[in-house]
Amino acid sequence: MALGEFDLIEQYFAQVGASPSVKLGVGDDAAVLELPAGRVHLISTDTAVSGVHFLPDSAPNFIAYRAVMAAASDLAAMGAKPEAMLLALTLPEANADWLASFAEGVRCASEHASLPLIGGDTTRGLLSVTVTVLGSALSGQYLTRSGAQPGDRVCVSGTLGDAAAGLFLLEIDDTNVSAADLAFLRQRFLRPTPQLTLGQMLNGLATSAIDVSDGLLADAGHLARLSSVGLIVDPGAIPISAALRAYPDPAQVQEWALRGGDDYELLFTLPSHAKLPDGCTEIGEVIAGSGVRCDGVPNITGYDHFER
Amino acid sequence: MALGEFDLIEQYFAQVGASPSVKLGVGDDAAVLELPAGRVHLISTDTAVSGVHFLPDSAPNFIAYRAVMAAASDLAAMGAKPEAMLLALTLPEANADWLASFAEGVRCASEHASLPLIGGDTTRGLLSVTVTVLGSALSGQYLTRSGAQPGDRVCVSGTLGDAAAGLFLLEIDDTNVSAADLAFLRQRFLRPTPQLTLGQMLNGLATSAIDVSDGLLADAGHLARLSSVGLIVDPGAIPISAALRAYPDPAQVQEWALRGGDDYELLFTLPSHAKLPDGCTEIGEVIAGSGVRCDGVPNITGYDHFER
Repeated sequence: MALGEFDLIEQYFAQVGASPSVKLGVGDDAAVLELPAGRVHLISTDTAVSGVHFLPDSAPNFIAYRAVMAAASDLAAMGAKPEAMLLALTLPEANADWLASFAEGVRCASEHASLPLIGGDTTRGLLSVTVTVLGSALSGQYLTRSGAQPGDRVCVSGTLGDAAAGLFLLEIDDTNVSAADLAFLRQRFLRPTPQLTLGQMLNGLATSAIDVSDGLLADAGHLARLSSVGLIVDPGAIPISAALRAYPDPAQVQEWALRGGDDYELLFTLPSHAKLPDGCTEIGEVIAGSGVRCDGVPNITGYDHFER
Repeated sequence: MALGEFDLIEQYFAQVGASPSVKLGVGDDAAVLELPAGRVHLISTDTAVSGVHFLPDSAPNFIAYRAVMAAASDLAAMGAKPEAMLLALTLPEANADWLASFAEGVRCASEHASLPLIGGDTTRGLLSVTVTVLGSALSGQYLTRSGAQPGDRVCVSGTLGDAAAGLFLLEIDDTNVSAADLAFLRQRFLRPTPQLTLGQMLNGLATSAIDVSDGLLADAGHLARLSSVGLIVDPGAIPISAALRAYPDPAQVQEWALRGGDDYELLFTLPSHAKLPDGCTEIGEVIAGSGVRCDGVPNITGYDHFER
């Protein structure tokens, strides 16, 4: 078999990161990971499709960076220590410039998220990226969506709505938004930061956690359903960045904060006695019941109505 | 967020298989796998794209079955015990009949390959399936592509070329092929069988292994390169099924056997003293040098010419 363009591609990804846990990386039929005794593996997979999760003409390094960071956010939500990742890339053609930029995004994300690349696959087709991330935690000691208890406080890290605003503002130069705010909001969409350190800190402290990828109300709905509890969210308590607060349409700002996805902050529940970590905000409480209530906000979910 | 069609899809995959290693399956941000002490994880990911790896109008259960089994074959090649899988499915629309058939293929493959489904992602786009498989082995005790030694025998399981012939014959009713042979060859393409049991048996016995997915000569080339040895393959020794031998064009038969992919048999090297497992055939020898030589067969690879 001649060395095809798709064999060449693999050379871009031969050496991205390293870790003592990785016993065998890219190049064999499978990669090998070895954890210290007493630790378990946490695994998640996420696909980003051109035209759905990113604009087709996005810079390749952003596509790669976002895809890896979005996947890594699932490890953050479980309180896991990042261990390694695999990358399945489908693309229409092997363009050297495009690939060099994409590989740079992979390397950058690999470094920032401490996820050495240990395997993958490259296939021809419409552009999409599937990232599988592996993390570790002590046996039985990881965060889930299902542990929230009535009486817990509902908390969130960072600020919400920035990424949705950034996506909206990506292709328009809104004259009502300052250049600095525009840059901040766009970066929040393009270069998300999974809360890996916070997740590991919350491990053993929070009773449940989820990352805000679908939007606050939707993800609160997942948490409520999996924990068999109700959540009350105070719309006035939701943390909004200064850049987003400066946006001239307050109703739109609230909508982004409540329903915008892709912020990759952590939504979690804390027992009443536990100290709120720095950079986090209490936004509501857990009650017996089901669903999510957010005063003044109708139609929170289509299937999981608040019942009290 | 309303319950979209893509949320509904996930219900098809909520409960596929189980295993004591799986501490947390589908439904949270990540799945959790716990192995007995002393075991390592082996991980591989494979994408199948519509129009490249399968025909767009293929039956959905075959698409799913093949995708899982092809991925599982990488675990076989490492001598790993299958533990679990994740499935990232991209599809243009949520059609209930299509999904029911696809899910049946997933369930069937999950059962045959002992791979409970522990996670995944569903996205909208052109049809493709990325399967990530996880296996386990004792620390330091797994097969690789890099251990072949001069003096070892080159061996292969089963028969070769069937799947390539089956793919060729998939859409034509070749009147020179009996109905039984046609059915056999087509099934070899549509329902591949990863050699998971043989792989685990070869673990500790074979010096190197790879699964035959790109074609015998191409995969022999990978083995030679990674092991820094040369391989001599005797074209007359290659095992051919009775169904394929009955095909009226012997030159085409040899071509399929040498270069056809997708058989998912194991190509491996055995020390001279080791007993050849049942159902396997010795087809050559390992020598000092590089590349693959197969007498009478030119242009084996474009980059790794045989040197002696």
